[in-house]
Amino acid sequence: MPTTLGWTITDWQQAYREGAEPEALISKLLDYLKGDDSAWISRLGADGFHQAMAELADQLEIVDGDLEQLPLYGIPFAVKDNIDASGFETTAACPAFAYTTQQDATVVRKLKAAGAVVIGKTNLDQFATGLVGTRSPYGAVPNSFNPKVISGGSSSGSASVVARGLVPFALGTDTAGSGRVPAGLNNLVGLKPTKGLFSINGVVPACRSLDCVSVFGLTIADTARVAEVMAGFDKADAFSRKAPNALPLDAPAIRRPGPVQRLAIPEQPEFFGDQQAEAAWNTALSQWRQLDTAGVELVPLDFSPLLELAALLYEGPWVAERHAAVQGFMADHASDMNETVRSIISKAGNFTATDTFNAQYRKEELLRQIDTLLAEVDGLLVPTAPIAPTIEAVNADPVALNSQLGTYTNFVNLADLCALAVPAGFRDDGLPFGVTLISGAWKDRELQTLASQWLNAHPTPLGATDKARPEEVVTYKPAVPTIQVAVVG
Amino acid sequence: MPTTLGWTITDWQQAYREGAEPEALISKLLDYLKGDDSAWISRLGADGFHQAMAELADQLEIVDGDLEQLPLYGIPFAVKDNIDASGFETTAACPAFAYTTQQDATVVRKLKAAGAVVIGKTNLDQFATGLVGTRSPYGAVPNSFNPKVISGGSSSGSASVVARGLVPFALGTDTAGSGRVPAGLNNLVGLKPTKGLFSINGVVPACRSLDCVSVFGLTIADTARVAEVMAGFDKADAFSRKAPNALPLDAPAIRRPGPVQRLAIPEQPEFFGDQQAEAAWNTALSQWRQLDTAGVELVPLDFSPLLELAALLYEGPWVAERHAAVQGFMADHASDMNETVRSIISKAGNFTATDTFNAQYRKEELLRQIDTLLAEVDGLLVPTAPIAPTIEAVNADPVALNSQLGTYTNFVNLADLCALAVPAGFRDDGLPFGVTLISGAWKDRELQTLASQWLNAHPTPLGATDKARPEEVVTYKPAVPTIQVAVVG
Repeated sequence: MPTTLGWTITDWQQAYREGAEPEALISKLLDYLKGDDSAWISRLGADGFHQAMAELADQLEIVDGDLEQLPLYGIPFAVKDNIDASGFETTAACPAFAYTTQQDATVVRKLKAAGAVVIGKTNLDQFATGLVGTRSPYGAVPNSFNPKVISGGSSSGSASVVARGLVPFALGTDTAGSGRVPAGLNNLVGLKPTKGLFSINGVVPACRSLDCVSVFGLTIADTARVAEVMAGFDKADAFSRKAPNALPLDAPAIRRPGPVQRLAIPEQPEFFGDQQAEAAWNTALSQWRQLDTAGVELVPLDFSPLLELAALLYEGPWVAERHAAVQGFMADHASDMNETVRSIISKAGNFTATDTFNAQYRKEELLRQIDTLLAEVDGLLVPTAPIAPTIEAVNADPVALNSQLGTYTNFVNLADLCALAVPAGFRDDGLPFGVTLISGAWKDRELQTLASQWLNAHPTPLGATDKARPEEVVTYKPAVPTIQVAVVG
Repeated sequence: MPTTLGWTITDWQQAYREGAEPEALISKLLDYLKGDDSAWISRLGADGFHQAMAELADQLEIVDGDLEQLPLYGIPFAVKDNIDASGFETTAACPAFAYTTQQDATVVRKLKAAGAVVIGKTNLDQFATGLVGTRSPYGAVPNSFNPKVISGGSSSGSASVVARGLVPFALGTDTAGSGRVPAGLNNLVGLKPTKGLFSINGVVPACRSLDCVSVFGLTIADTARVAEVMAGFDKADAFSRKAPNALPLDAPAIRRPGPVQRLAIPEQPEFFGDQQAEAAWNTALSQWRQLDTAGVELVPLDFSPLLELAALLYEGPWVAERHAAVQGFMADHASDMNETVRSIISKAGNFTATDTFNAQYRKEELLRQIDTLLAEVDGLLVPTAPIAPTIEAVNADPVALNSQLGTYTNFVNLADLCALAVPAGFRDDGLPFGVTLISGAWKDRELQTLASQWLNAHPTPLGATDKARPEEVVTYKPAVPTIQVAVVG
């Protein structure tokens, strides 16, 4: 068993500072990964490993051995298999769709440039269509705490390999909750950034107008560090956005600058009969109420407009974005697809252009209602997933349970919000419970600050390992203050 | 003939300051309007007139006779008949669709609150679908310079009544050029604002995500004054936008703060064989080149990405927005519609939800190309309309000529640009020629400033009247400077 199991990025960096060599540590890790494991679709082979090590040595030489200039030097990570990484196949969990690429997705390229090493591609709900982690010909990914329970999806494999401590971080994607639900079910931090903050160039689209690359980590500090490397405008991604110089002061509180402290919680939280989840939520809430140092205030609100927006995404024409992404492939290979996924994507045919515009109008109207609802709160605090079903239960009812899982995640991307899923204790059955902090676009760092205060007050072990959580300390290079004079009246 | 013919807002205000009474001036004007005139669909009747005068008297009493507080006191204006005005029918130029409303559209309400008086509703291409001014059961609207020539549309009637000096300003709408083409063909100023600056609440939608209310006036100063009254965020309009406190300094030049001076012009302007238009354009260009005081520089660019965006609007799924607007009506009343308009809107059925998302992706990609193309220019200078066809020619080929008319207008709203159409001399056949200034969202005032310098250097008579153009002086209340510290890195 490699000594690196359960290491955070900080631990890896410490080892390198003390003289450890990437080649030794990573080769030992790769040996350990060789067995059957449905979390992986592909793993770094001998050739790829030697090439990666040679490139890393070159990088080190270029910076004259200064590790400060390679902020992720020698850090192994996993990539969800709908994100391109040079030398690996991209399957999107559909073998008939697979292609081998020599191009890195923009985010992978940036991580490698910082010294990180891709050690494998991970399993997912096919075409990132699902929140369960069971819709893959490569097998269902078991929960890292209880193999009978789902891992959550669609970024199932990435969550699993981080939770088990194989890698300190992994990339997922998140359109309707795929970067958060598996974090919640595996005691991880799941960072769902502001839309457009990380490039989606080189990612197989799910809903291209909503897709985000996400990060799973054991700690907030690790995910934040990875996010700083990945962030930035990318011309090659038509949905990439430049961070604004400043947020408007006259916006609803959720979209204004400032710390996240006043949190909306659902007035009538829904757990679909899962009493253990409900109990864990109530425990978490009472602990959040005591988070005096962070100035937290909880405000019960009627979440109806948010839930209506979620329904619009799940039942409306946005499914046609999934169709647009695989249209050509599906025309010839429908029979090669997972049955549930095919049946979902086929629903695109039910919607006309007129339906699409009508739904987009409804979206805009709901956004107005949502901004009114959230005019006096800085953020939201919600259960990450309201249920934690078994693989068997999901197989018996694959669509309904999937939809329940997304109750508190589905609306986030459509409403242009960012989110951070964090551990929040355990249920009586030993499964982890998670909560998600949500705020307006570009307030990613404010969520990290608040979540760090939460985890420092209520530390849980790291993922599914027995390692104790270190103190969360997130620091950023200070933003350069900018002064602008108004140009419009 | 009323003495008010050809009066600007400034002229009306001067008369009131000198003791004239709205009741006397406007009743004389209404008498004059009683004959046949295809520019009008409805005119203010006796009851409506008395009610309007009583309301105006009440308003004056409330402000204690202080005309400064009623910036449009007693100014008559016309409203395109797809915009609701209390007491009038809204027909959208389709009698079977007509309804009488007791609610003003938000912009009409604001103008009335400033003291302006609606004196009639004007003809248009049915459902604002056209750039010609011939697609209406109320008759084609003749050009104010030559009755054999089209007025341009869809805001045909509003342009006609302003050009002839009946009212100093009128409201139009502009989705693909309907507020600019008729201004160009009738020697008017046509203000197409930044999308979301004027509310579209109470407007029959054409393409709801793109629609703007527009203003026709004899002078820039008048349209600017009206715009200041109409501007502002409206909760009731899901597409209304708050003006940002500041524009980003790292945006392409076209979207950055600052004066509009460096203007892209089409490298290979297209006039579809109209040599008179081409000659007028070349004359205008040589005059623009001499506009040294304004610091103007002309930069020929390849407009291909802009033209491709225009084609996407005209040939792509956005036509389904027009269908979404009249879906219920059209299901029962297709035979009551103008044949050309029906045939265009019916094309919505050719597009699926998947097509719609694919076109929206293509739009985002083209916007990236456009921002690269316009990274070093503050604005664009284009012919408002490249042709000025006869009504007969348009009737013979209603779709192709319409499409040619929109060459330099179609792309503007999709690309989130604002525009100002201004007079630019005359063709050899006596028809007016117009040019349009275009810049990024929220740079409406910068366009007005530059256009004023242009008209002061090259003044043309007002509309189709023989009145000389007064000096254009546009002043605004200075914006309150705001200082903001960056909140994102």
